Amino acid sequence: MKNGHPHIPEFGKKFDLRSVDPAETNGYSKEEAEAEIAGLRIRINDLQDRLYADERYAMLVVIQGIDTAGKDSTINSVFQEVGPIGLQVASFKVPTPEELAHDYLWRYKKQLPERGHIKIFNRSYYESVLVERVKKIAPKDVWQRRYQDINEFEDYLVRNGTVVMKFFMVISKEEQRERLQERIDNPRKQWKFRLGDLDDRKLWDEYIEAFDDAIEHCNTKTAPWHVVPANKKWYRDIVVARALVEKLESLDLRYPPGDPAVLGLKVE
Amino acid sequence: MKNGHPHIPEFGKKFDLRSVDPAETNGYSKEEAEAEIAGLRIRINDLQDRLYADERYAMLVVIQGIDTAGKDSTINSVFQEVGPIGLQVASFKVPTPEELAHDYLWRYKKQLPERGHIKIFNRSYYESVLVERVKKIAPKDVWQRRYQDINEFEDYLVRNGTVVMKFFMVISKEEQRERLQERIDNPRKQWKFRLGDLDDRKLWDEYIEAFDDAIEHCNTKTAPWHVVPANKKWYRDIVVARALVEKLESLDLRYPPGDPAVLGLKVE
Repeated sequence: MKNGHPHIPEFGKKFDLRSVDPAETNGYSKEEAEAEIAGLRIRINDLQDRLYADERYAMLVVIQGIDTAGKDSTINSVFQEVGPIGLQVASFKVPTPEELAHDYLWRYKKQLPERGHIKIFNRSYYESVLVERVKKIAPKDVWQRRYQDINEFEDYLVRNGTVVMKFFMVISKEEQRERLQERIDNPRKQWKFRLGDLDDRKLWDEYIEAFDDAIEHCNTKTAPWHVVPANKKWYRDIVVARALVEKLESLDLRYPPGDPAVLGLKVE
Repeated sequence: MKNGHPHIPEFGKKFDLRSVDPAETNGYSKEEAEAEIAGLRIRINDLQDRLYADERYAMLVVIQGIDTAGKDSTINSVFQEVGPIGLQVASFKVPTPEELAHDYLWRYKKQLPERGHIKIFNRSYYESVLVERVKKIAPKDVWQRRYQDINEFEDYLVRNGTVVMKFFMVISKEEQRERLQERIDNPRKQWKFRLGDLDDRKLWDEYIEAFDDAIEHCNTKTAPWHVVPANKKWYRDIVVARALVEKLESLDLRYPPGDPAVLGLKVE
């Protein structure tokens, strides 16, 4: 995972999350990162404005990671300068009876972004090969077939103008311990803590195995995974922000020209 | 419109938009306003976080105003610090055939906020007594009955935990002329300009009359109208932001206490 895209795993290769250092900072200091993120946030806002005006593309941003990996805080930080008119977040929780009565991708397809908009999936259809596998909600022959479904779905989206950006947040087990402990000890954060979070923590190794397979099987040129070291929030944020800026810049977004009948008109 | 709420018209009284000075700044300088708005934005973000944790209330923010009155830019400015997880915007355009096949409030009810969230209606059900009246889409006996529908609807929302905040942006006809001219002359803004905007401008007086009646008939203690002088963007923003802060503070929002079984727990 070096050069051009230091955080995209090699395509078609076995992937091992243990090879990623969650505390990696690529030589950055906190001060350097914070100076850079300020400019990246403004650039993302400018590019989102062009995306909106240009109206050719939508952007889907998928954010995954184990509990406390910082999904919410990444969203709030990276998109801080972007106004809410062209930016939406869909947070997926336990499926409702209506959602369960449909195929497993149905509830995600309902929430896809319209052209000109950025939609963030805070958790996503990847849960169907993660929590559903680890908690044995879906049997192996069912979840194993889903990698191909997901690849086909993402390929379909990209061919139809929805850019798909996927970020997997990596924290260490010790970092998760500290963050869970903080939720218990800080009265402003207690409401976020569920006892079930500790059950999930006991399944750490099973989750890692599911993450490895999901990243390996669904890391495609069309919609690559960005595996983001996330112990240091300031490094995490520049990795995500820079990937978004690079992608948006590659789309050559333009403000459409005005109606020729309008040019030079004087308003009375 | 003085004291406590300088921008809420007197309830049950005839209302005349011409009595509002669109360039009013209440003695503020631009510098003072910009210093104050920075703090208000941070306070709104803090209160939104509590609203989300507290989970008892939703907040609906209705923004109305004539073309170029600054609806989008108010949203982007006032909510600049609020992350997208608990904040959504619904922008209402020409109704779709599916929407037209339902009662006129249907498409707005579908977009109401869930508890813990702030939802901004960028234009709203008020269009049913504004553009539909001015453009003669609805006959007089139809739109006249709608004020009562709307009052009953808002009363129902408030009794059921959705706080309703309504802002009407007032600009002068000369200010609109300058802003439309800017859209024509600035290549980055031309795509926003439609020739139809000039037809609407010709109906200025008819719109003012419709605004007067909508504000007069739907200005209730439950859901008052804030009539916001909006020629000066910096004054407009503090009027809106301050009203939101006051309302959110009045709700006594709290972080729910943690599960007693969790207090003092050590994570392993």
